[in-house]
Amino acid sequence: MTQMEAAARGELTPEMKAVAEAEGVAAEAVLRGVAQGRIVIPGNVRRRGAKPLGIGEGLRVKVNANIGTSGDIEDLEGELLKARAAIEYGADTLMDLSTGKAIDEVRRELLKLPVPLGTVPIYQATMAAKRPMDLSEDDLFRTIEAHARDGVDFMTVHAGLTRESLDRLLKQGRLTGIVSRGGSILASWMLHHGAENPLYKDFGHLLDMAREYDVTLSLGDALRPGSIKDATDRGQLQELIILGELVEEARRAGVQCMVEGPGHVPLNEVEANVLLEKRLCRGAPFYVLGPLVTDIAPGYDHITGAIGGALAAMAGADFLCYVTPAEHLALPDLEDVRQGVIASRIAAHAADISRGIGIERDHAMAKARVDLDWERQFELCLDEKKAREYREKRRPQDPDVCTMCGELCAMKMVKGYLQAAEKASRDQ
Amino acid sequence: MTQMEAAARGELTPEMKAVAEAEGVAAEAVLRGVAQGRIVIPGNVRRRGAKPLGIGEGLRVKVNANIGTSGDIEDLEGELLKARAAIEYGADTLMDLSTGKAIDEVRRELLKLPVPLGTVPIYQATMAAKRPMDLSEDDLFRTIEAHARDGVDFMTVHAGLTRESLDRLLKQGRLTGIVSRGGSILASWMLHHGAENPLYKDFGHLLDMAREYDVTLSLGDALRPGSIKDATDRGQLQELIILGELVEEARRAGVQCMVEGPGHVPLNEVEANVLLEKRLCRGAPFYVLGPLVTDIAPGYDHITGAIGGALAAMAGADFLCYVTPAEHLALPDLEDVRQGVIASRIAAHAADISRGIGIERDHAMAKARVDLDWERQFELCLDEKKAREYREKRRPQDPDVCTMCGELCAMKMVKGYLQAAEKASRDQ
Repeated sequence: MTQMEAAARGELTPEMKAVAEAEGVAAEAVLRGVAQGRIVIPGNVRRRGAKPLGIGEGLRVKVNANIGTSGDIEDLEGELLKARAAIEYGADTLMDLSTGKAIDEVRRELLKLPVPLGTVPIYQATMAAKRPMDLSEDDLFRTIEAHARDGVDFMTVHAGLTRESLDRLLKQGRLTGIVSRGGSILASWMLHHGAENPLYKDFGHLLDMAREYDVTLSLGDALRPGSIKDATDRGQLQELIILGELVEEARRAGVQCMVEGPGHVPLNEVEANVLLEKRLCRGAPFYVLGPLVTDIAPGYDHITGAIGGALAAMAGADFLCYVTPAEHLALPDLEDVRQGVIASRIAAHAADISRGIGIERDHAMAKARVDLDWERQFELCLDEKKAREYREKRRPQDPDVCTMCGELCAMKMVKGYLQAAEKASRDQ
Repeated sequence: MTQMEAAARGELTPEMKAVAEAEGVAAEAVLRGVAQGRIVIPGNVRRRGAKPLGIGEGLRVKVNANIGTSGDIEDLEGELLKARAAIEYGADTLMDLSTGKAIDEVRRELLKLPVPLGTVPIYQATMAAKRPMDLSEDDLFRTIEAHARDGVDFMTVHAGLTRESLDRLLKQGRLTGIVSRGGSILASWMLHHGAENPLYKDFGHLLDMAREYDVTLSLGDALRPGSIKDATDRGQLQELIILGELVEEARRAGVQCMVEGPGHVPLNEVEANVLLEKRLCRGAPFYVLGPLVTDIAPGYDHITGAIGGALAAMAGADFLCYVTPAEHLALPDLEDVRQGVIASRIAAHAADISRGIGIERDHAMAKARVDLDWERQFELCLDEKKAREYREKRRPQDPDVCTMCGELCAMKMVKGYLQAAEKASRDQ
């Protein structure tokens, strides 16, 4: 039985209880969210060892880190180091996007880590077929099933890329075409064979497999914009409408699903993109990649992604896929992964505290600052090590303050006066 | 005659023309903005060599970088290196916040650079007096005049910190008290002497000096929140109301002015803060520090500041003061300055393109990506050097693509199909 089927029967599973406890919300709220499809708990029934994690309405905003080899860089041990660093710095889930040679090995190693794992099976199926047009429908579904059997918790399937949405895109034209790898494979295949997307045509088959293992489907946005110019266009919206229909089909089948979103989006369109997903897909958890709010900052796309992600999450996006400084340039290295996770965590947390979630830590930090209690400040930092390094490198003469203001430390200077005056004001 | 006085007479100055040209807007729009006080062109009449810069409604969002020695780190040459790096990476203005010993020298060197320079004269006056309570009113005004005579283009004066706003703050109480250095000096002085803020009491005198040199007053927010918890409180708003009154007084005197804003603000309050400033201060240019959308990311406050800054600028803030990764920890070094400027530039640009300003560069980048034209991509990057480094470090086998996707490059894979199909779609 899937979490969603259990919830439909009003059955509170251990996973729902664990999520409720971790989030500090009522178990009934989690149960209701899962039953309605507004919360997912990605957890393959064959998987052991991952902590139950809820994604969706009313819960903390979650962060995913992408890991994986590419054809150019195949270093299993390197990817595992990145995966562990991502978890250490606060990634809630991992996705294995390997396209190198040791895809099975990387996936199986990542499944030993304690967080939910997602994959995009079409990558492996395509690498095996060599060319997108040589991919067979059977092989694609076999790869999906193999991932499910291995215990993968959620999978990206680009089932909303249909003849219809592709035709709309072609009719409209676009500056950056298709930038989703899975979307690009499927579009090539569909145009070459003049055929419908098998993931759409046989969506029922996909649902059967997903239900058997309780794999959460992450409905991919093959037509997400690849540039500010292409944001929120007819191709993207046509696909989103179809994804909304697929969400309902999945819910009827008791299969958990979420919906993936852009991409490159100007700041002023971010909120509308979230609203559209929430409306068209009836509150399905929204998993966004970025969004990147400008195209001109390669080397700093973790920052452009944090800006877009914070705004999206404040507007209701539930799950942020990290972007690293290497995006658009190269496969991220260990330091890029760390930077990407932290930037996304900042965005997620900023959105959380805008709803009052997790704000206690900010208040504790503020108090530690007033108290000039540096040890406590470090403990409360998102990246304690980095903060300590800064202070160690440039130590002030007065251990109370820092080298920025030195003796002109505002906090230190006025504290005594304010305390006395506040007391006098109260005593009046 | 100040720019504002000239504008009031309908006189188009060379500076207004230069601003209009640089921004690609009508000269009349700049003239009208300056006349109404919605645009400032900070330019001391004694200053030579700085390019005219407009800040305010309808113009590109500008970025300031803070430079300056502290008591702990006094390295004139180091500060000049930082200043030049800040300009190279896109800072539109500099502020000299020196509190070390060679304050006059640093300021005079910075005045040789080609961007408007701002200062906070009370720092130097306080360093000379040794203790805030020993600061004399005459010395404070003498320091302000000395800075004006040297050619400083804009100055932060915390004139809205009055007995009234301070009393409101004390009555309310606050977690992080006063975190503005200037505010903290003045509050200590006011509480010690039981006296009104001289910058408020003698605001007319300040206006006389500002008018003589056409110094743009940057009305400081002494009571800006120092934590998420204190954001948008009664102390902050009382001061903003008073700043609104001072804006009108300055306008009547023909003195250009802008208003400074927070600070630490949760995401969901950023837009309201901008709206309040624009309403209460009748459209005066808004100069924000951050805002920082969480307190728990020391080491990454350039990112928290970029998130808040982008949102603030989209809502109407005109001028972003950069925040570096060293904020709350230490005096920034050269690399911190670079990181801070770039993060703020990303925020400013993201806000600009949300209004269609400067969007051509994003479109050109998108086109260079479709064309797999790496040289052109690098040229269009905010930080060309960094982007090149990434690619050089991890070169792909196929020079068209990058090591992230390798042969699975979406752009490369589907391009031929899409072009043929788009053509077929058009020909139908």
